[in-house]
Amino acid sequence: MPTETILTGHRPTGPRHLGHLVGTLHNWVALQDTHTCFFLVADLHVLTTDYEHPQRIPANIMDTVLDWLAAGIDPSRATLVLQSAVPAHAQFAALLGMLVTVARLERVPTYKEQTRELGLTPSLGLLSYPVLQAADILLYRASAVPVGEDQLPHLELTRELARRLNQLYDADFPLPRPLLAAQPRLPGVDNRTMHNSYGNAIYLKDTPEETTRKVMHMYTDPTRLRPSDPGHVEGNPVFTYLDAFDPQPEALQALKASYRAGKVGDVAVKQHLAAVLNQYLEPLRQRRSELARRPQDVLDILQTGSQHAASAAQETLDSVHQYMGLSLGQSFNRISTPVEIAPLVGAFC
Amino acid sequence: MPTETILTGHRPTGPRHLGHLVGTLHNWVALQDTHTCFFLVADLHVLTTDYEHPQRIPANIMDTVLDWLAAGIDPSRATLVLQSAVPAHAQFAALLGMLVTVARLERVPTYKEQTRELGLTPSLGLLSYPVLQAADILLYRASAVPVGEDQLPHLELTRELARRLNQLYDADFPLPRPLLAAQPRLPGVDNRTMHNSYGNAIYLKDTPEETTRKVMHMYTDPTRLRPSDPGHVEGNPVFTYLDAFDPQPEALQALKASYRAGKVGDVAVKQHLAAVLNQYLEPLRQRRSELARRPQDVLDILQTGSQHAASAAQETLDSVHQYMGLSLGQSFNRISTPVEIAPLVGAFC
Repeated sequence: MPTETILTGHRPTGPRHLGHLVGTLHNWVALQDTHTCFFLVADLHVLTTDYEHPQRIPANIMDTVLDWLAAGIDPSRATLVLQSAVPAHAQFAALLGMLVTVARLERVPTYKEQTRELGLTPSLGLLSYPVLQAADILLYRASAVPVGEDQLPHLELTRELARRLNQLYDADFPLPRPLLAAQPRLPGVDNRTMHNSYGNAIYLKDTPEETTRKVMHMYTDPTRLRPSDPGHVEGNPVFTYLDAFDPQPEALQALKASYRAGKVGDVAVKQHLAAVLNQYLEPLRQRRSELARRPQDVLDILQTGSQHAASAAQETLDSVHQYMGLSLGQSFNRISTPVEIAPLVGAFC
Repeated sequence: MPTETILTGHRPTGPRHLGHLVGTLHNWVALQDTHTCFFLVADLHVLTTDYEHPQRIPANIMDTVLDWLAAGIDPSRATLVLQSAVPAHAQFAALLGMLVTVARLERVPTYKEQTRELGLTPSLGLLSYPVLQAADILLYRASAVPVGEDQLPHLELTRELARRLNQLYDADFPLPRPLLAAQPRLPGVDNRTMHNSYGNAIYLKDTPEETTRKVMHMYTDPTRLRPSDPGHVEGNPVFTYLDAFDPQPEALQALKASYRAGKVGDVAVKQHLAAVLNQYLEPLRQRRSELARRPQDVLDILQTGSQHAASAAQETLDSVHQYMGLSLGQSFNRISTPVEIAPLVGAFC
């Protein structure tokens, strides 16, 4: 029985943090057991919001891949793809762009939000973002895509484009469905959304000391002035983290009860969280630092994955070229056998 | 001394007509003597207006190339490129899309016109059209582009994008200037613009009989009811054609004088034009029919040209990838020598 194919990925905006780990990587690692997985390092997508700091991107890509591998992404069971290294992504996106209206793309919620947030006139790249994403997904004929809620409208557009290809050209693209992660979002240490650009993230690559320092500065319960005040557990990021990482749920319930009763101070709880995190992260850090000493091997993993992906992608692109009348170029590799072009002769002689 | 590079091309919408011959092909043939020429079969650009009839495209491409070769495009002196066969066109366009705003593209006159004319909500492909065209031109570092007046705004955008690359990344793209053709436009046989979709074109591939038949049905001077009426030469397509093709200018002046004086009938003038055209087209038709019997050789020409173009294009794309921080994938072909990635190590370890 062929397994279901998934495609998902990250924009390599910098090192991965605990939010990435809990929100996506844990899920991806598990999916490797049950699915044919393509994990995309979406470096073209970085340029939609930042093309002015190109010098950062290669290091950010390496950080991203090191973190993936450290978290348990296994190149022997999954395919790691560098988007810019597989030409078919941009080629397919250019073709899909013929099948979608500008008006449809202007209605995509993330586009409207980002346009408002940035307060800028948006670039063509930003408008085209979900079309490139549709190409990413459909190239590998993925039928399921692990996504966050904010990405659901993009996946809806992907399904529309798959349907359009299927109707126009009698193609057989699966309509990819979302796999929503069950995990809650992990807040940043300041209780805002954890984000590389907010300076509120704990990174997988942080040292134990950095991790402890960040935890000790964490936002907790603002209504609590003294350790003897009753504390709030809900919405308190320290406990959100403990829910995600504490390996002893019963002891955690007891700690929560003490906190609610004003019997344990913030410092003690944070010290416990720092210990839990450092214990949890220790094997990841070891794998990561071991890999970081062999950057060539990491690049090799990305190269091997991208080459494997490129050949799968090319097969899809060849079909799409055929559907859309662009099959002549394709024949360039095969035209030593004249019989292949025979059906054409009648058409133009 | 290196010669100046030009890039120009046609959308393969069908066989080439006399308007193409006079308006562009004559000029291209002459440019082969003085310039490094890339002639683009812009098949991706066809899809912006017609993706619903894919079965036509391969035959249209073959017709276009046969007509180019028949008209004197010489693959030993110029490079013929099939756009869809060179991935760098779509790849570069995706990158250029990051550097141009949607608002800027919505101000492009051809976009506004086509949107009005078609009365449709435009596709992303139509909006992106001039960006793909800029990629076509800049990929080969063309410094001059033979264009019609309607294409000047596209070339202005291309220059803006070249300037943007040069400023942002200290690149050295030439700012391509237009080469406007000196030749006047040839009208269709009904005196409207000659256009494949209007059914008013005389094709290079038409037989002598078809050509004569079309000429004999040509629109002339609507104010002239009898051969003895004084005729108008200006705005009379029969004479516009004779101006372009009659090899004997003195005899033509005499014919015009007779026409103005009401001493020669439309039928006689048309018979003269049919003879002139058939004589002019005879060697083209011979070359064309000889080539049409060897479709494999024509595909080989397109393949060889596209391969040559692909390696020039890849060189540019490699530079752009480097500028924009996407150089890791590039290193995939070269990473067997570990020394090459040394500068990276410090960045992420």
